[in-house]
Amino acid sequence: MKEQLDYVAGGGLLDRRLFLQRSLVFSVATVLAPEVLAAERDDIQQWQLKPGDPLSNYGKPSPFEQKTIRWTMGNAMAPGNGVSWTPLHDLEGIITPSGLHFERHHNGVPQIDPDKYQLLIHGLVGKPLLFEMADLLRYPMQSIICFVECGGNSNAGWHSQPIQTQVGYFHGMASCSEWTGVPLRLLLNEAKLKGRAKWLIAEGADASAMNISIPIEKALDDCVLVLYQNGERIRPENGYPLRLLVPGWEGVVNVKWLRRLHVSNRPGMTRNETAKYTELMPSGKARQFTFIMDAKSIITQPTFGHKLAKPGLYQITGLAWSGRGKITKVDVSADGGKSWAEAELQQPVLSKCFTRFRIPWHWQGDNIVLKSRATDETGYIQPERAVLVSERGEHGYFHYNAIVSWAVSSEGRISHVYA
Amino acid sequence: MKEQLDYVAGGGLLDRRLFLQRSLVFSVATVLAPEVLAAERDDIQQWQLKPGDPLSNYGKPSPFEQKTIRWTMGNAMAPGNGVSWTPLHDLEGIITPSGLHFERHHNGVPQIDPDKYQLLIHGLVGKPLLFEMADLLRYPMQSIICFVECGGNSNAGWHSQPIQTQVGYFHGMASCSEWTGVPLRLLLNEAKLKGRAKWLIAEGADASAMNISIPIEKALDDCVLVLYQNGERIRPENGYPLRLLVPGWEGVVNVKWLRRLHVSNRPGMTRNETAKYTELMPSGKARQFTFIMDAKSIITQPTFGHKLAKPGLYQITGLAWSGRGKITKVDVSADGGKSWAEAELQQPVLSKCFTRFRIPWHWQGDNIVLKSRATDETGYIQPERAVLVSERGEHGYFHYNAIVSWAVSSEGRISHVYA
Repeated sequence: MKEQLDYVAGGGLLDRRLFLQRSLVFSVATVLAPEVLAAERDDIQQWQLKPGDPLSNYGKPSPFEQKTIRWTMGNAMAPGNGVSWTPLHDLEGIITPSGLHFERHHNGVPQIDPDKYQLLIHGLVGKPLLFEMADLLRYPMQSIICFVECGGNSNAGWHSQPIQTQVGYFHGMASCSEWTGVPLRLLLNEAKLKGRAKWLIAEGADASAMNISIPIEKALDDCVLVLYQNGERIRPENGYPLRLLVPGWEGVVNVKWLRRLHVSNRPGMTRNETAKYTELMPSGKARQFTFIMDAKSIITQPTFGHKLAKPGLYQITGLAWSGRGKITKVDVSADGGKSWAEAELQQPVLSKCFTRFRIPWHWQGDNIVLKSRATDETGYIQPERAVLVSERGEHGYFHYNAIVSWAVSSEGRISHVYA
Repeated sequence: MKEQLDYVAGGGLLDRRLFLQRSLVFSVATVLAPEVLAAERDDIQQWQLKPGDPLSNYGKPSPFEQKTIRWTMGNAMAPGNGVSWTPLHDLEGIITPSGLHFERHHNGVPQIDPDKYQLLIHGLVGKPLLFEMADLLRYPMQSIICFVECGGNSNAGWHSQPIQTQVGYFHGMASCSEWTGVPLRLLLNEAKLKGRAKWLIAEGADASAMNISIPIEKALDDCVLVLYQNGERIRPENGYPLRLLVPGWEGVVNVKWLRRLHVSNRPGMTRNETAKYTELMPSGKARQFTFIMDAKSIITQPTFGHKLAKPGLYQITGLAWSGRGKITKVDVSADGGKSWAEAELQQPVLSKCFTRFRIPWHWQGDNIVLKSRATDETGYIQPERAVLVSERGEHGYFHYNAIVSWAVSSEGRISHVYA
């Protein structure tokens, strides 16, 4: 079998376009003998014996998919404070279903009546403005398919020992949706920013009145006041009836249940940009206002919790994204980083958006280590873990984006390793 | 106000890039006096007085959005036979949430255990093959964002009087998802098609064993065996655990709960390509195997059921799509077709995919008629209703894709008209 294949890197990696060019040289299906075929063809399945379930007003996943859930982790000391993870290990494509978008709440999910909702723009403006929901729905809109990632995503990567958990419960504080709403610059222009306006302090209408500061340049660039997520009105846990989208920047600045935008000449120095979402460096100083999420990639299948049944053909697939623009390349290694092969990127590749990569792989039953490495359009290359730790020190919590390594044992079991 | 604007067509249509170029010249927000501003700023909303709702394993829409549903219409004489419509009038962007994807079932939704599911490929093949779900999940996959539209969508357009209903309950047997699965040609190549193989007869595992024929050229081109919809495993009402996707072709050939593919030298002449899904022409002959869905556009807002509160700025938005490739242009008229202006197309524009169009509009309080008209990359232009009816006759049921007209009254009420 081996001699029929062109390996493009160590550990059994195959050309990414193999399946576009010719048929499979490995079969995993059962070839049927004539008498078995006749029986198969005439078989009636149990679920064909009576009419199926009726039409429904709003659908939900199959009862056989109940394991595909957000894994929640609340803080027992602070009601409504916690996170839930997107199960990236169970998903394919680039869209995250809204029901599985990750959550990070500081004081729970408020249920806001859109008819009572108002958005205030005030501070260093010529005209303080108050918007009702009916007003906002009349404005011109735009859509953007883009990721949102918590600044604390993947923070277990800073642990001294590699965490053993499914990939979504390690890296799944990142999700990707089609967001639609009103470009923020339209409303800021209408409010007439004063010359001294340098920062926006965005505040949510949750019980914690979560607030954080955003430079005015970003606000006037590509921020969106989001009213719709994946086609329908935005979900409560994502900020219904309105969230601020700050493309490519850490999740905490994408303020949910947005209640007001205070225009100022300086940042608010709020809790979430002083006590939190700052990073202690080896020098003893802290990085602050580290808004942009750097390029990252993760293999989603096969990873911890999956098992390879036997040697043969498999697909390696995963996601890559960058807060600085488009992903230009994802390299995959099946020999612990000694050699690399370029994965196929699912088209279209969009800026600040999940990018699905895939490469075929012939697992020959050996102990090997899988890695993936993203490059974005600025030329930035996702670093090895040792490099990231040497730059940032051992006490990091935020902005972990190092290459992730997965060891495959000869039994086909997969574990997370630092390699 | 009028003199500040550049109208690009009659009835108040404005340049599609108006809002990219400069700030709004119409304000719909409330400008606040200082004492009102102070009160607004210090106000605490009722939903901020206690912690919000907890994290959840799988989210759902806001309780304030319960009107955004599929409208179901079952056939009381035949259990499980019927349709439900996507509420396009309430949606934005291009993705349809999976819970709102339209339904067309012939005998209800079977609940299939994926561990008991099998897919059979047989007939004119060198190797009849049987696939378990675990086999299929090992194959290389691809994703495509594409629409599925029932061949009978918009059939009320053939009525002698214009139907008065919300646009989704008229044109909403069309939806758009990110579909991910195994390219069908891989499995057909593996089964080794014989030289006489010209058609596939695809059969579902529902209680009606719904079957229909597909030319082998299309099967080898871009068809996909879909396992995932919008990131997660495909929903039961869309064919869990596997449906056939036939991009750009009428919904009925996109067989759900796909159980087998019988390779043949001729079509099966099944019920759904003889008694149904054929079109009686004025000559008395019937069109048959009319697979491709021609280019179509519909305004989704403002349409029947929406009300314009007062003259001023509005956004006209809608969807266009073509089974033949990309949409290249959508023109909008606000004077019943006397003059047209080009709408902005949301990027990226994808082949055989919903394309969102938008154009700003200054409604001056007059009685006017809105229309939209799509052009696709083959040069095909969506026809006026009179043209379509003259070609196909008065007794059509399938493949209605004429220009839709909406009359706006001076009170801001909207009705469907033939104009």
